[in-house]
Amino acid sequence: MSVPSPEDFRFRRQVPDGDTRERLVCDSCGWIHYVNPKIVVGAVCVWQDKILLCRRAIEPRRGYWTIPAGYLEQEETPEAGAMREAKEEAGAEIALSGLLGVYSIPRISQVHLIYRATLLSPEVAVGEESLAVGLYDWAEIPWPDLAFPTVRWALQHHREVGAAAAFAPRTNPAEEQIPPR
Amino acid sequence: MSVPSPEDFRFRRQVPDGDTRERLVCDSCGWIHYVNPKIVVGAVCVWQDKILLCRRAIEPRRGYWTIPAGYLEQEETPEAGAMREAKEEAGAEIALSGLLGVYSIPRISQVHLIYRATLLSPEVAVGEESLAVGLYDWAEIPWPDLAFPTVRWALQHHREVGAAAAFAPRTNPAEEQIPPR
Repeated sequence: MSVPSPEDFRFRRQVPDGDTRERLVCDSCGWIHYVNPKIVVGAVCVWQDKILLCRRAIEPRRGYWTIPAGYLEQEETPEAGAMREAKEEAGAEIALSGLLGVYSIPRISQVHLIYRATLLSPEVAVGEESLAVGLYDWAEIPWPDLAFPTVRWALQHHREVGAAAAFAPRTNPAEEQIPPR
Repeated sequence: MSVPSPEDFRFRRQVPDGDTRERLVCDSCGWIHYVNPKIVVGAVCVWQDKILLCRRAIEPRRGYWTIPAGYLEQEETPEAGAMREAKEEAGAEIALSGLLGVYSIPRISQVHLIYRATLLSPEVAVGEESLAVGLYDWAEIPWPDLAFPTVRWALQHHREVGAAAAFAPRTNPAEEQIPPR
């Protein structure tokens, strides 16, 4: 059986009254199906000079390396979500220390909120969505095998911020905006 | 005719394989209906020492005052969304100057990204979702008639940041976390 899409349910693309954009609106009852961007939360987590990286066990980009990150859940704060992802993907207990980056990928309607964090201990463990996890020196980061550009940006911005206690969060690097679809 | 909910479509609450939370999963085809938090984008917009405020023409909180803000749209960056809202609600052309606050309201699954901005001219106009718009001195802000706590936080944080060029974005004030549902 094929996967149903909202279009199967007598939805039609139209601009609702008082709106400026096409939405999927049900012809019979007028219900409007809003679709909005998703929030990804994550953290660059450090233990002394080492950085926590996870090798992805799931698609997309299975086998490539990432920082702990994932979709924010309903009724969850971004901070709680970033801590949950570190726990789920790497068995890591962390303390957040500031918002490092706000990255947007409009092509896939995602906004990433990436924090800086300190591991409470060097004990990490392979979670269900990871093939491997570990603590790596800056020189050991597998740059060509990072899963997403945002992972690279976050690591570079973490390095750039250095020991600063208060800093403005970084955004997409100007020289590599991801083009709209 | 009543408004259909996802439950009408043979969805059942269950925990999908490899997941840790209940989702609405279709019994016949296995399709998973994910629901995620929404992003609200907005800006504290200033012209010289005056702040742009809009009186809401729509529910919730019709008749109360707000800064221009609204839901981020698909394939839109937060920065573009904040500029669009200023244009739609107050006819205002703005230039953003930094991320002022990241506020979360987990009870209603919202994350607000609020920027600082400068108006490119003092020309503002009443948009479809506003009853009135205007530029107000700090002393004129109608504190008891602000629409939402996040509006008050953003205005206070704007004042607190003052003339600083680089600053860490503020989050929910510690003394008034909005409790979970």
